[in-house]
Amino acid sequence: MNPLTATNPFFAGLFADDDIAALFSGTATARAFLAYETALTQAAAQVGLMDRDLAAGALAAMADFTPDMDGLRGSLATDGLAVPGYVRQLKAHVGADLAGAVHPGATSQDLIDTAMSLAIRSANDIYSARLTALIAALEELAKAQAGHRLMARTRMQAALPIDACHRIATWTAPCQRHLQRLRALRPEVELLQFGGPVGDRQRSQPHGNALAAALAQQLGLQNPPQSWHTERDGLALYAGWLSAVTGTLGKIGQDICLMVQQGIDALDQTGGGGSSAMAHKQNPVTAEMLVTLARYTAGQLPLMHQAMVHEQERSGALWTLEWMVLPAMMTCTGTALTRATEQIRAITRIGTAP
Amino acid sequence: MNPLTATNPFFAGLFADDDIAALFSGTATARAFLAYETALTQAAAQVGLMDRDLAAGALAAMADFTPDMDGLRGSLATDGLAVPGYVRQLKAHVGADLAGAVHPGATSQDLIDTAMSLAIRSANDIYSARLTALIAALEELAKAQAGHRLMARTRMQAALPIDACHRIATWTAPCQRHLQRLRALRPEVELLQFGGPVGDRQRSQPHGNALAAALAQQLGLQNPPQSWHTERDGLALYAGWLSAVTGTLGKIGQDICLMVQQGIDALDQTGGGGSSAMAHKQNPVTAEMLVTLARYTAGQLPLMHQAMVHEQERSGALWTLEWMVLPAMMTCTGTALTRATEQIRAITRIGTAP
Amino acid sequence: MNPLTATNPFFAGLFADDDIAALFSGTATARAFLAYETALTQAAAQVGLMDRDLAAGALAAMADFTPDMDGLRGSLATDGLAVPGYVRQLKAHVGADLAGAVHPGATSQDLIDTAMSLAIRSANDIYSARLTALIAALEELAKAQAGHRLMARTRMQAALPIDACHRIATWTAPCQRHLQRLRALRPEVELLQFGGPVGDRQRSQPHGNALAAALAQQLGLQNPPQSWHTERDGLALYAGWLSAVTGTLGKIGQDICLMVQQGIDALDQTGGGGSSAMAHKQNPVTAEMLVTLARYTAGQLPLMHQAMVHEQERSGALWTLEWMVLPAMMTCTGTALTRATEQIRAITRIGTAP
Amino acid sequence: MNPLTATNPFFAGLFADDDIAALFSGTATARAFLAYETALTQAAAQVGLMDRDLAAGALAAMADFTPDMDGLRGSLATDGLAVPGYVRQLKAHVGADLAGAVHPGATSQDLIDTAMSLAIRSANDIYSARLTALIAALEELAKAQAGHRLMARTRMQAALPIDACHRIATWTAPCQRHLQRLRALRPEVELLQFGGPVGDRQRSQPHGNALAAALAQQLGLQNPPQSWHTERDGLALYAGWLSAVTGTLGKIGQDICLMVQQGIDALDQTGGGGSSAMAHKQNPVTAEMLVTLARYTAGQLPLMHQAMVHEQERSGALWTLEWMVLPAMMTCTGTALTRATEQIRAITRIGTAP
Repeated sequence: MNPLTATNPFFAGLFADDDIAALFSGTATARAFLAYETALTQAAAQVGLMDRDLAAGALAAMADFTPDMDGLRGSLATDGLAVPGYVRQLKAHVGADLAGAVHPGATSQDLIDTAMSLAIRSANDIYSARLTALIAALEELAKAQAGHRLMARTRMQAALPIDACHRIATWTAPCQRHLQRLRALRPEVELLQFGGPVGDRQRSQPHGNALAAALAQQLGLQNPPQSWHTERDGLALYAGWLSAVTGTLGKIGQDICLMVQQGIDALDQTGGGGSSAMAHKQNPVTAEMLVTLARYTAGQLPLMHQAMVHEQERSGALWTLEWMVLPAMMTCTGTALTRATEQIRAITRIGTAP
Repeated sequence: MNPLTATNPFFAGLFADDDIAALFSGTATARAFLAYETALTQAAAQVGLMDRDLAAGALAAMADFTPDMDGLRGSLATDGLAVPGYVRQLKAHVGADLAGAVHPGATSQDLIDTAMSLAIRSANDIYSARLTALIAALEELAKAQAGHRLMARTRMQAALPIDACHRIATWTAPCQRHLQRLRALRPEVELLQFGGPVGDRQRSQPHGNALAAALAQQLGLQNPPQSWHTERDGLALYAGWLSAVTGTLGKIGQDICLMVQQGIDALDQTGGGGSSAMAHKQNPVTAEMLVTLARYTAGQLPLMHQAMVHEQERSGALWTLEWMVLPAMMTCTGTALTRATEQIRAITRIGTAP
Repeated sequence: MNPLTATNPFFAGLFADDDIAALFSGTATARAFLAYETALTQAAAQVGLMDRDLAAGALAAMADFTPDMDGLRGSLATDGLAVPGYVRQLKAHVGADLAGAVHPGATSQDLIDTAMSLAIRSANDIYSARLTALIAALEELAKAQAGHRLMARTRMQAALPIDACHRIATWTAPCQRHLQRLRALRPEVELLQFGGPVGDRQRSQPHGNALAAALAQQLGLQNPPQSWHTERDGLALYAGWLSAVTGTLGKIGQDICLMVQQGIDALDQTGGGGSSAMAHKQNPVTAEMLVTLARYTAGQLPLMHQAMVHEQERSGALWTLEWMVLPAMMTCTGTALTRATEQIRAITRIGTAP
Repeated sequence: MNPLTATNPFFAGLFADDDIAALFSGTATARAFLAYETALTQAAAQVGLMDRDLAAGALAAMADFTPDMDGLRGSLATDGLAVPGYVRQLKAHVGADLAGAVHPGATSQDLIDTAMSLAIRSANDIYSARLTALIAALEELAKAQAGHRLMARTRMQAALPIDACHRIATWTAPCQRHLQRLRALRPEVELLQFGGPVGDRQRSQPHGNALAAALAQQLGLQNPPQSWHTERDGLALYAGWLSAVTGTLGKIGQDICLMVQQGIDALDQTGGGGSSAMAHKQNPVTAEMLVTLARYTAGQLPLMHQAMVHEQERSGALWTLEWMVLPAMMTCTGTALTRATEQIRAITRIGTAP
């Protein structure tokens, strides 16, 4: 809902991450929804909740379904959700005879939350790879600056000389921890959602849990012991991880902004931004951007925690809030990781050679 | 930087406000920049800082300028700003002989902040009109529900019966105040920005202040006593107004969500959202959306205040942060006002007729 | 609820403001409550809602009332509010015959909100005086540094030399605006609260409005057209003012931290903090504290806006939230103003003498 | 810095947690500092950095040291830290001959961060015990309500009947996860801090790491591979855990507030708060308080993430910010856990018996 950063060519490029954006595109959502509906019909037949022939017919009919995106608008406006409209389209596509085999025992939240889980799973692959690349860049930097002396600054005041590698080590260690934490966190958020209208799988009984297990396996997601329609703790903590990653990168950016000040001159880098008015300037725009992304992402975090206070079996208000917040945090984290690696690789000197 | 809410057809429509979006489009920015550059060249000639013929030539050449949007990307990536690239294009467009008459004494921030002021000015017109419409809808509602009795609820518990109009009055009074406050606030934020590279107009002396006065008049903006490159208090307080408006509307939404609960049944409305799984449900999706927008906008507010801690003559990091936050807040406020009026008009009964 | 900053002698002194603290002490609350109850009984008699002799008797009996603070604990724990216990004590104090003349038509929120308004009124006097002193200190500084040259820094990079007074002017102008804004804001928050149990003054009719007018006059507060039990927009915007003030001071602090860096050396000051380990250091602890207070206060602000989404006629949850947030913001603003003036007065040089 | 919630008897009791408060008292800090200094002197002798007899003498002299709390004020005001004053007192106490054996190679941050780690360790024991008790209460409730039918509500609208135990299960599962997560998180935050003035242990070389290992063992804390003066990711994520716990409890509270509405009547409980004006009311004050604490704690969280953007080897501004935020979050989490268990135990009915 920020037109400036979304599409305005004077600004949008600064904030974009094409890889993450692709995970939240309409195409990705359509793919995820169809994967869900397909897996659901298949699993329903597999566990004995649906006639196998009916399922096979429906699956064949669903295979070439593409939603009419414009047609979703009405549902979105009226229902606050595109899923009812999507399901109507899908049922119409397979035809009245097979419509009963579509969306059995599921609810809008099952589709949307699972699509989010799938996006998160793909994003986590991206984050892992980028964190690994960043750590490698930091390690290479440490090698290149080995033995350099740097004036340590505490409370922004010159304190005592340190090895440049000490500061680099304080940049690197949190990145390594974030990578380890991500491994531990993935099973908490790459989760199937399947609960049906009120979260208890009542319309799929007595095979609800078996159905969920089959669905999860089919989709390559974790199968939690129950649906998590209103248990948003995993997402809130995941948001915390995103914010902590950008915080670590923001600290690196802030340090670099301080180090390249003329008069301090503790760091040289290639690149640097120009000014429309002062040709002599070399602005640390990448380093600044890391600070910006850290502050922004930290600022979004409490909303994911406010959004935990779901009412009863589903909070429309707070679920919608997550959509406004989490993809933005994920994009910023992606952007920050890319920029951080560029930034580290651009450094040609820290401190003073021995 | 939220691809889900920006362009994904399964979600984006919920959050969009076409009128506000238009104010932050690339077209709007291009129009604002050219208006600024034109007014600047004109004013420079007017106050005696530039040869009038040179200015006239440059103005004639600038008249048909349209930026090459793709060409801005490089500047945006390198400089963290599209303005240097934009100014290079504009100078190239007018040709080497006239290039000296373009962007005299100005800096990127002058253009971008003024473009923001112009967007804010237009948005304020929209907000005024929408608040006025909302107040009218509330007053009409109060008339329609006159004499109805409603069980007051304090701490969510039934307390004592009140007149339905009392509750409507508590919805209306803050809207009236917000409208008044906006009038007082507009001169604080519909401001020309003109400071030059370091904010002191040094390159336009001794005519800097006269130039600013002429520029402001030309652009229809207030002329502050000095540039406000690093004085972001006006914007921070404006963000507070936006958030307070959505907060008021969120309170209305929350009340309506509670009133339409079966068992409470204190309100009837037309419309209401459907469910993909439960045909009998009528979800208060508009009312919920008002809560969502209130929580989201409130959540963005502190970032505009964190962004006040600008370093020295310009903080790249914090200025960029404003771009991520303020247009999103402005869009949400616009959306919330539209939705609120729809919501109020949809109400057919509050409480019990006498 | 922060024991470290409240009472721990290793930390608490940093954050305290004795003048503001006094406004939120138990003594101040007891004084405010008794003032309210006294004014209420008096006004009730005045407008004809109560027998004048009964009122006189009750007033005489109330005059020497001091609440048993320990006795409030039970009410606080059970009711979430000390007021029911307080009113019981007060009624017992005046005796059964006069008890009917105590707390007529009022509710807990009337007392607590009005006590908050009274604290805000006193705090505003303090802020006005401190802002005035700060502005004077800034003006004196500008005089002392007149003609000094300073290297402007944009994006933390050396840009062009400016007059030191330009930077001081960017510190001063927002303070002047804050002072003006406070004048405009005071009538919005120094408000009587009087609504009775459900906010509509029903138990005081037909004299509710007359009673409110008399109460407001007696207490020296503004008399809003209706009670504002659930209309928290004024408080939310006041919180924004507090945060904006600390933001302005945080920017000054941040600048000073950057200016005193060795290698930049753009500012000299007396004082400065020592280190337990490095005797040679002079840390800009006051300037840093201004940054801390700005960030903290900005961080609290959204909670005052989240708290606007009151349910129906009273939200226990969100009203309580205000108590956790607003006094902390008010204290930090008070502390920041005091520290800022100390900081400005400690400056002995900015930039280079001519 | 919130005098209302800290000590005002009309309010403070609502927010207090005596067990957590004790961990942040001056007494606790004094105990932690002396434990640190003692362990440091001991470890320095052990690893060969200090003469053993000197150490023994100093340790004997330190044993009965109690800081003069009033005497810390000056250091706190001047240095922004009480530690320099504390160390001066301790050195004076042991006498000039032994003073060299005190605080060897350490810095203020080593003491303060380690004292925080010790407080966190004790708090984690408390949280573990309280979460365990809460889970037991929830399991008992599930047993007592077995077979009860409850109308599920999605988007606050009646949806389909569910088993009451389904809703209880959605309350319980996150608590179980939080308990598990705490186990995993403890080694990330119950950490020795030892880095010396600039974090690289340079004054303790070549025995810095051995010294740290001995210190950690002595204090019963984890020994991280390097100091973490500027690596605040662990604390930021810990704050996220605190906030997520209160978020889960806030969801329970919100549900209960909705369930006890007259007209919904889905839950009975003992207790409930009274009103100063309406004797018939039974307010769900404990449930509301859980919502308040969730919103407050979520609101503090981003500050711990903003505080990650430390400058260079120590950020005075951001480290101070942590003191304002983390103990408040820890107290609220403690209070929320206690209240939640009380609340669950007070429930006598959910839904309808079979």
